[in-house]
Amino acid sequence: MYRFPTPSAAGLGQGPHWRKFSSTTLHVTGIALVAVSVGLLACTLLEVLTTGRDTAALALSTLLAGTAGAVLWYLTRPGTVGKRQIFATVAWTWVLTTGVGAVPYVLAGTFATGGAGFVEQVVNSVFESASGFSCTGSTVMADFDNAGRGLMMYRQLTQWYGGMGVVVLAVSVLPFLGVGGLDLISAEAPGPNSDRLTPRVSETARRLWIVYAGFTALAAVALFAADGFSSVYDAVAHAFTVASTGGFSVYPDSIGHYGSVAVETVVIVFMILGGASFTLHWRAVATRRLPHCHNSEFRAYLLLLGLCSAAVAALLWATGGLSPGSSLRAGVFNAVSLGTSTGFGNASGPGSAGDYVAWVAGAQLVLLLLMVVGGCTGSTAGGIKVMRMQVLAVVMVRSLRQAQAPRAVIPVRFGRDLITEGVVSQVAGFFLLHFLLVIGGLLVVTALGGELETSLGAVVSALGNMGPALGEAGPTANYADAFSQPARLSLALLMIIGRLEILPILLAVVPHVYRARALTRVLRR
Amino acid sequence: MYRFPTPSAAGLGQGPHWRKFSSTTLHVTGIALVAVSVGLLACTLLEVLTTGRDTAALALSTLLAGTAGAVLWYLTRPGTVGKRQIFATVAWTWVLTTGVGAVPYVLAGTFATGGAGFVEQVVNSVFESASGFSCTGSTVMADFDNAGRGLMMYRQLTQWYGGMGVVVLAVSVLPFLGVGGLDLISAEAPGPNSDRLTPRVSETARRLWIVYAGFTALAAVALFAADGFSSVYDAVAHAFTVASTGGFSVYPDSIGHYGSVAVETVVIVFMILGGASFTLHWRAVATRRLPHCHNSEFRAYLLLLGLCSAAVAALLWATGGLSPGSSLRAGVFNAVSLGTSTGFGNASGPGSAGDYVAWVAGAQLVLLLLMVVGGCTGSTAGGIKVMRMQVLAVVMVRSLRQAQAPRAVIPVRFGRDLITEGVVSQVAGFFLLHFLLVIGGLLVVTALGGELETSLGAVVSALGNMGPALGEAGPTANYADAFSQPARLSLALLMIIGRLEILPILLAVVPHVYRARALTRVLRR
Repeated sequence: MYRFPTPSAAGLGQGPHWRKFSSTTLHVTGIALVAVSVGLLACTLLEVLTTGRDTAALALSTLLAGTAGAVLWYLTRPGTVGKRQIFATVAWTWVLTTGVGAVPYVLAGTFATGGAGFVEQVVNSVFESASGFSCTGSTVMADFDNAGRGLMMYRQLTQWYGGMGVVVLAVSVLPFLGVGGLDLISAEAPGPNSDRLTPRVSETARRLWIVYAGFTALAAVALFAADGFSSVYDAVAHAFTVASTGGFSVYPDSIGHYGSVAVETVVIVFMILGGASFTLHWRAVATRRLPHCHNSEFRAYLLLLGLCSAAVAALLWATGGLSPGSSLRAGVFNAVSLGTSTGFGNASGPGSAGDYVAWVAGAQLVLLLLMVVGGCTGSTAGGIKVMRMQVLAVVMVRSLRQAQAPRAVIPVRFGRDLITEGVVSQVAGFFLLHFLLVIGGLLVVTALGGELETSLGAVVSALGNMGPALGEAGPTANYADAFSQPARLSLALLMIIGRLEILPILLAVVPHVYRARALTRVLRR
Repeated sequence: MYRFPTPSAAGLGQGPHWRKFSSTTLHVTGIALVAVSVGLLACTLLEVLTTGRDTAALALSTLLAGTAGAVLWYLTRPGTVGKRQIFATVAWTWVLTTGVGAVPYVLAGTFATGGAGFVEQVVNSVFESASGFSCTGSTVMADFDNAGRGLMMYRQLTQWYGGMGVVVLAVSVLPFLGVGGLDLISAEAPGPNSDRLTPRVSETARRLWIVYAGFTALAAVALFAADGFSSVYDAVAHAFTVASTGGFSVYPDSIGHYGSVAVETVVIVFMILGGASFTLHWRAVATRRLPHCHNSEFRAYLLLLGLCSAAVAALLWATGGLSPGSSLRAGVFNAVSLGTSTGFGNASGPGSAGDYVAWVAGAQLVLLLLMVVGGCTGSTAGGIKVMRMQVLAVVMVRSLRQAQAPRAVIPVRFGRDLITEGVVSQVAGFFLLHFLLVIGGLLVVTALGGELETSLGAVVSALGNMGPALGEAGPTANYADAFSQPARLSLALLMIIGRLEILPILLAVVPHVYRARALTRVLRR
């Protein structure tokens, strides 16, 4: 059991405790909303200073989010919660923040294009908000000119906030709860390894956010320089979404807008770093050494990105009628973009070199594979994660060896560590859950009218928090054209499920151990 | 170490042992070829009595297979082999028999249609032979009139022989070798549970073949009756491929040729039984009771087929514009046909009710799911197998419970038995191997020019020994139109890999433990 710090204990208020409603979920949501309202305030100022068209909507949203956040924060107190309830708290906080985060789009009428009614506008706003806070980057935005610069920056900022939540979640909360074999990295995670989650979270969060903010600032400066010091707005906007491996852009043709090898190279480097463990980055900062090269997962991640980039480039060169240079550029950028679950595109338009839905099927398949694997644990990237795939690969090879020597006891090793059978089984269970969710999501999305290949890409993309998918939902298309409204909502839900590593959402729905036990009983009848 | 019975020990010959070449693979292949030549002889007689067009080819093939088989059988003696070598023996026997099995098609010029050159004829013959002996049922036959009745019956017979090999392999060899968690059923398997494989195999084989032959005879009689006693040839031909869950038909429109609900019902019943464990059938015969209803896997299998049939029928009725009756007929037949890895179709032509490639995407997805799962262990069906999926489902639910109670030790149960972590890990490893082979196969087939959806269906179908796939390789299409020649050969290889439960073929290629160990070392570096 854990006791979250109350506002008074944290020196934030001296309100009478007995009057407060006890809810950790609402309390944490309150804090998140206050943080979002601060971002909204900055975006309102930007809007006033630049385009000015969405000022009223942003100001009103700031007020709403700020008030709602402050009220929740002040009126509730975090309860004493067991590990089990932390799952529900994390899940509901993400869902509620996504809901409130949709308000600015609705108020500004951002999606009031193409004759969309109010319901469709709300659906699209929720989709865009979910895609933002889950760092996915899929968009339903058809007309990028129908939004002011402040609102566009807010959209970028939702991904940055999402990334902020994700690094803390991925490094300190989920491993601690033993989600899908993530306890493997808990030994490596910084912070006191005690049984109490709270000090661990706050201390780890402080460190990670320093790294994350510094990383974002560095990305902004690098992008600004690579673009020839032409636009601070562009640099900052894309820095927010490259640091969070989110993939939103303020331009419909994403990074293809620049048409610059220098910018693409900078983006590639920061995507790779953003998809790597922030724990490693923190240690690099703290020790002024590079622990990356001794990290088994990071090396496998680089190897995977390198091999897949080369394979895609080779396939494009051999079959696509592109020059070696164009093949390399299109191959490396898109392989890294999807392998880090960012989802930026470098296509200048439909059918251009970077428009991978026009590529040969084999190259698209490599991208789909990268989308399934995702980035490293402890990063803002999504997907199954490289470390889990490594464990599974070792288990797979062991099953070959076991068949040769049925009675041998063959241990599973990861790097220098021995992995317990419990962790192996957790990782296998996670992989299966992921697989079943892809199947289940596909069933729902195709039943709601999606085409098979497009839906497969979109479900894998949503669950792995990538962004663009295959078929009609590629890098130059938007999801509003490819999917019905209920299908878009289903994909939005999958994004949040994928973001929280699946288990928290499932456990929030199936909260009691005995229910899972009953399910086991049914399954093995 | 095991000593296979020598011909002399088995009373089959008194040849001088010191002159014989020691090779278990060639010895077993010799026996298989002699058996095939007996079947070929029967088919030659049938050809003489009926169409008569392929008599010469069949007679020559009988002579070739018989001579080659007899020579191999007589000139070699089975060596003393370890478990490790049994894998290679099984794999190579299947490959060699497939190669020789292609000869009749080549000699008869069965695939000399549409201007196919000699190389393409050989490729197609090998494909058809692999599809036959692996009980897959995919075909490259475009013109069914370009073959005599004897040759068509030979084609049906290859599947029946394949099924014969499969039941023995699945019930007595693979579980004994602990392939992918199959040792779970070894406790249930009949025969002496000693450390010596040979007596086990021969005793089990005898029992199973009695059941298998009886089952085939029953199917033939039932089909003959259901079809109004009109054609013994049709009834016997389809009995061969329903008993082996193979799915070859002597008609291009498969079971759709009959256009009869009675025939389809009979086929459905026998497909369901063919996809169930032959160990259960043997016990039912031996004890005159029905052990099926107490078998956890069989019940899950029926439940899966029932639910999927209902889901497909409902989807067809809701979206396809079909009457409830037609929806039910098309849904149940095709769900059972793919869920048992048979692959019969009941479409009367492209776009008819049973032509599932024209169905709504959701219904096709259910079929794809059934293709991945496959039938029961110990049956002639392919796929991952219901039992493995049950184990994985239980592991998955456990990973949910484990996340709720990270320190609890939660055992995995299957039916009334406790499953060891070793078996869990073997099953998970098998699942991953299957998954990786799908990805790898897809990469190869799409690189060789296949379209993504068609290739996905074909790779899953080949690996799971189904037959028809999705897209351009559906139940009314043929593989020659959808895939290039190298792609067809790759699919033929995948059929054999899938048939032997993956591991034997992989281990025949990677024969030494130390190599797998080196691979582990690379993977976890």
